[in-house]
Formats: sequence, structure tokens, C-alpha cells
Amino acid sequence: MTSGKRSVEEHERYVAELLGTLLSGSTVTVPLSRALHRTLAETITSPLDLPPFRNSQMDGYAVASSTVSDAPVTLPVQGVVAAGDTTGALARGSVLKIMTGAPMPEGADAVVPVEDTAADEDAGTVTIGRGTRPGEFVREAGSDVRTGDRLLSAGTVLAARHIAVLAAVGLTNIPVRARPRVAVISTGSELVTAGDVLGPGHIYNSNGPALAASASANGADVVSIDHCHDDPDEFAKMLAYAAGVADVIFTSGGVSKGDFEVVKDTLEPLGGDFVSVAMQPGGPQGSAVIDGVPVLTFPGNPVSALVSFEVFARPVLRAAAGYPPVTAEMLPLATDLTSIPGKRQFLRGALDGRTVIPAAGRGSHLVAGLAAADVLLDIPADTVSLEAGDLVKVLTL
Amino acid sequence: MTSGKRSVEEHERYVAELLGTLLSGSTVTVPLSRALHRTLAETITSPLDLPPFRNSQMDGYAVASSTVSDAPVTLPVQGVVAAGDTTGALARGSVLKIMTGAPMPEGADAVVPVEDTAADEDAGTVTIGRGTRPGEFVREAGSDVRTGDRLLSAGTVLAARHIAVLAAVGLTNIPVRARPRVAVISTGSELVTAGDVLGPGHIYNSNGPALAASASANGADVVSIDHCHDDPDEFAKMLAYAAGVADVIFTSGGVSKGDFEVVKDTLEPLGGDFVSVAMQPGGPQGSAVIDGVPVLTFPGNPVSALVSFEVFARPVLRAAAGYPPVTAEMLPLATDLTSIPGKRQFLRGALDGRTVIPAAGRGSHLVAGLAAADVLLDIPADTVSLEAGDLVKVLTL
Repeated sequence: MTSGKRSVEEHERYVAELLGTLLSGSTVTVPLSRALHRTLAETITSPLDLPPFRNSQMDGYAVASSTVSDAPVTLPVQGVVAAGDTTGALARGSVLKIMTGAPMPEGADAVVPVEDTAADEDAGTVTIGRGTRPGEFVREAGSDVRTGDRLLSAGTVLAARHIAVLAAVGLTNIPVRARPRVAVISTGSELVTAGDVLGPGHIYNSNGPALAASASANGADVVSIDHCHDDPDEFAKMLAYAAGVADVIFTSGGVSKGDFEVVKDTLEPLGGDFVSVAMQPGGPQGSAVIDGVPVLTFPGNPVSALVSFEVFARPVLRAAAGYPPVTAEMLPLATDLTSIPGKRQFLRGALDGRTVIPAAGRGSHLVAGLAAADVLLDIPADTVSLEAGDLVKVLTL
Repeated sequence: MTSGKRSVEEHERYVAELLGTLLSGSTVTVPLSRALHRTLAETITSPLDLPPFRNSQMDGYAVASSTVSDAPVTLPVQGVVAAGDTTGALARGSVLKIMTGAPMPEGADAVVPVEDTAADEDAGTVTIGRGTRPGEFVREAGSDVRTGDRLLSAGTVLAARHIAVLAAVGLTNIPVRARPRVAVISTGSELVTAGDVLGPGHIYNSNGPALAASASANGADVVSIDHCHDDPDEFAKMLAYAAGVADVIFTSGGVSKGDFEVVKDTLEPLGGDFVSVAMQPGGPQGSAVIDGVPVLTFPGNPVSALVSFEVFARPVLRAAAGYPPVTAEMLPLATDLTSIPGKRQFLRGALDGRTVIPAAGRGSHLVAGLAAADVLLDIPADTVSLEAGDLVKVLTL
């Protein structure tokens, strides 16, 4: 496809449509022990009552409230019901010692806490110090949840308290949204992998680890990370492999105006779409579909690659994983700034309380500068200057 | 130790001291690919310059700026320098085609972008359309980072952009805070594990999964999860095992006033400290040290256990993992509420925008109610009533 010009908003829509298949929301089942931070794919209703049976809220004595209405009153202790015991029946005129969580015996309608009683173990009796009313310190079956009640809604990102209720109703296999499977291919003959020797003219590959970490942090499963030289055959092989294992492929590098643009040169003949997006950093953007799998091609400068991910990929991945969207805030600038007309700028910045300090360096190779940033400042394409105190749109990194 | 009464604040200090050993901050080294969301144990300085060498910021032509001062000017193209090539030298009066990221040849001091040139490939020349100035579109070695510069401070929780800079300087093994190793033992003969048959008088064990998930979510490694019947021998064996593998042990249940308080009965003779904390839920609290390993004993009601974790364990675990503390907010109440004098109450609540709706049910067995909550309302011990609109301290769950 011919290259063209596109606004950020247009490319966002283009990418969202291309990656829309990720949002179809396939469901996988995970054991409860691995469900933390996953997103429920279905609404969960309770398969049972909680509590499942009428039980004591206190350590004390299960009584028929009518037998203790003239308290203090001394009554025979028929026995002990512990948590985990099966229900017995209370003989009229007796009491049963009962533990918290133990099933209420038939014939008892209240529990008197042990603090309000005095036992005579030799005599096998207890003096109940005060009257009670039916239901006092008794938890009725189903008083928390009834069978069929909605426990958790589809879309809930599971925290510990949700794990608690799923465990409490005995669920072991939890239907959650499938995480999008992501493959990352960073390209460039200048790249070497951290741990290898850095020869002349070489730099360490930071886009591979950074895009993989970004994808993981936004709900994806990174299933493949490759580094490719500027060699079309190597790239074609890696693409084919990635398309076999992933739901979406992110590449970095090889999309600009040089003589060795391996990504563009490979994908353009296959129907890839390469455009200049009116943004900085991250102008050269592209996409393609390989064996039915969408490919987003980011530029190779580290800041450009990560900003491209933040702007175009992150919202879609989060939606696919069922994570809440990243929300922007409007915060005041600490200093004046200028911006390039006609390009939406994403500047690095630091927060000082609720004030934004734009970073000095804007070069898209400034990876240490990016690491030091807290936020991206999102400056509209038609803005050329802002003054200290003006509100800017801020995306938390 | 004898039981006593303690305020929440006193027990917080007691627990923080007991668990202080977790904060000694031992360091482990993880591969970069597993460093996401870990906390740096040491400040990282750069082992090299970034960029490591002077390179081109654009696809274009490397020139000596003095030779193009009379632009437009047509000059011979000496060759091509691609990214990953080693540095050559520019012959005086020539230019070199150069790709983004390629090393600047000796003798060149600027790059003219390809957009501002017109090549004649047959003639082996290029017309440089405009003048330039020394340094234009050239990235100097060390312009992002110099060898020895501080890259990231100890305590940084590593996000994707931090992974990027660590990769960019070629670091593969990253010193991070060791995660506290946590063992969870839930006690109670009434408990069965989800997936097993729920017999009469039995409930599913929710505290084990919930405390494990809570610990994981707050930076801990859960190394052991056990469920124990109300059997002192079984509990003693599990404790000994847990003390062998964990840095801290959390138990639930067995700390109240019943006849079968397996946790209290086992630990009290070993010097365990069991107290009544002036809070609701979560009053019965205890602790011990087994083989040098601290044990916190939470009550067995699911809400009590999770609130105990939030109040006493979570701050220490987060500090040990190097995570930022959970901060409370003051938010207005949607409705009136009453509270028990002399007890600090932790009520469940939901957020409606920035307003807090207290949950109706307060029973500490209401695990579904807890799951439906967004926040805990932290009501001071001396407060007995609050009105709609009053500000309450709110902890996000």
C-alpha cells in the first residue's frame, strides 16, 4: 500500500480496528491459585448458600431462648458441638456448648457467648447469665449469599477478596479472559543482546526487553522475543514463526527512509500499510497481517518504540485483557514549553506533586531520559506553545 | 504470655517490630527478563556511554558542514554507512550516505536528512539541498548517559521504561529486593478444600487462598499453603515445616475462646503472645516466633482474617518488597453510620465516585460482602456516630 499521512487519532482507529480480533474475548479456565489479577470472563453465581448451614457466631452455649428467659439460670450441658461436627439435636431444658462456626443443633435458636456464662464442669452444668432472643449470635444459612446469587460480575479483575469468595463457594476452575499472546521482533543489524560483547557501531537491544515488559505489564502473555538483523529472509522466517504462536506481533525498527528497512521492505509487498503519523516521537508507523495475525511495526528509536506502544498498543491490549483503560489527567505545567506545529507531541515529564515538569531532552534516542520520566505529556498537534500553569494532558507511564 | 488488651496502634507497632527482620532487605539477582515490577536493591550506574558512539539521528548524508555551506551543492557519494557498520573516514569533498543509528564517519560533523537531498545514482553523486551546522542530526557519544552516571536509584519499582534503560546499557542480571517468603496455614476441622465434597457442618477454606493471594499481591512469594485440622500435632508439624521454608508465617483460626483453639493452645506454651485488640473485625490477634521465624495468627472468620492482613501484615510486606505504602484518603460518607465505642472499626464500603457508601452487613463471616466492597472505612475507636457528608479515612482494597 502506498505510504500516506495520518493523524494520531486516525491511526489509533486504524490500529484498534486491525487489532479488534484480540477483543473477541476468548475464555480460558485457570485454577483458583492462578486467578489473582486475571479478569473474569463470565459472571459467577453461587453454587451454594453461604453460610451453607445455620451456625454459631460465637464460642458459647446454644440454647432455646425460651429456656433462659428467667436468667440467670443453671442448666445441664448436654455436650459440645465443635466446628466441623455434624448437627445434633438439643434436648429440651438443656444447653449445648458450641464453638464459632459449629452447626446450630436442632431445637436451639440462639447462642449465649461464653463470657456471659459460668460453667460448673463437675456438676455438668452452666449458669447462663443473661437472657437472649431468637437468632442472637446465630448465622442463618444463606445470610451472606444464596444459591444462584450473583457473586462477581464478568469483567472483575480478581483481587484477594474475590479469590476469597470464589474459594468460599468451592470453585476451583475460574473462567478468565485469555491474555493476548504477543510476539516481539526487534530489528537492526546494529543490535546485540545484553550479555554479548558490544562491538564498534553496535548498541544493546533495548526495544525487545522493553516492549516485552510493556506487553506483560498490560495483561499480555509474551510468547516469543526475537532479534533480527537487517536481513529479509531472517525477518520473514521470524514473522512466520511469530504468526504461528501469537495473537499479535510487535516489531521495532526498519520502517523509516533508509536503504535497509527490513520491516517495510518485507511487509509492503505483502499488503503492509506504512504511513507517516503526525506525531513526535513515533512518526513512521506501519502494520500488516501475516497468516491472519496483525503486526504493528514501531520505529526503532527506543523512545519512539515505547511511545508508539503506549499510544497505539496499550489501550487495545488492556481492553483485550479486561483491564481498565489508562486515564489521562489534566495537570498544570511547571514551565513554559514549545511544540512543533502540525504534530502531536508526546514529551517526557516528571511530576512534582501535581505539577508537571517537562524533561529537557526530546531526542527519541534518550532512553535514560525516558526511564527518568513519570509521565508523558500529550500536546495537541495544533499547540505551538504553552505557559507555566497551563493545563496539559498527562498519561502516567 | 498472658493475654491482654491492646489498641490497633500498639499492635501495629508490635507486629512491625516482630516482622522487622523482613525489612533487612536481602538482595537477589534476577535476569532482566524477570525484573519487571521488582524493586531495585541497589542504585545502578551506567557501565558505558549512551549512545556508545557518535551516530546519525537520521537517514541521510554525513557531511563536513563546511563543504555544504554553499548549498545547493553536488558532491560525490563515497559509499554507504549502515547501522551496525564500523566507522570509516569521510574523504574531504565527499559525502557518505548514512542510516539512522550508523556511526558517524571521521571527518563528518553533520547529517543532512535524505528529504533535503537528491541523489543521482548513475553519476554517484548527491545534491545537498541546504546548508547545515556542526552537530546537526548527530548524536554525540554519551549525550544520553555517561559511564558512571546514575541510571536508576535503589528502591525503583521497575517498569518497562526502566527495563529499557537497563537493557540499553547491557545489564543482564539485576539486583532486586528479595521477596519475603510467606507460608499460610489455615486451621479448622470444619474446613475442606475447594474441589472436595462439602459434608455436613463443613465449609470451604477461603482463608488459605485469600491470604496467599493477598501476600502475592503485596510483593511476597508464597512458598507454602497448608490446611490444618484442630489437631495440635498436625499443627506443630506444619509450623515446623513452614518455619523451614518461609520468612514469615500467617495462620488463620484457632485464636479465640473456644475449647479447640489449636493455634493459641500450641503457641502460648512456646511464648506466643495472644491479645485482644480493640478493633472490629479482627479482635483476637496473636503472634509467636518459631525457629526464628515470626508467626502472625489471624482470627478465622474470613473478613476478620483479611482485615487483619490489611491492617497488620500488608504494610510490612510492602515495605519489605520495596513497594510504596498504601495511602489512605479522607472521603465523604454517603449515609450516616454508627460505630462501637472503644473499638476501631474497619467497615466495608463501596465508592460512588468520590463518596463512600458503607456496606449494610457487618458480620465478619460475610465474605461475599467483602468481595463486593471497594474500600475499608477506618473508623477511630472513639467515634460512635458519623453523618452523611462527614469525612472518613478510606483504605483502597
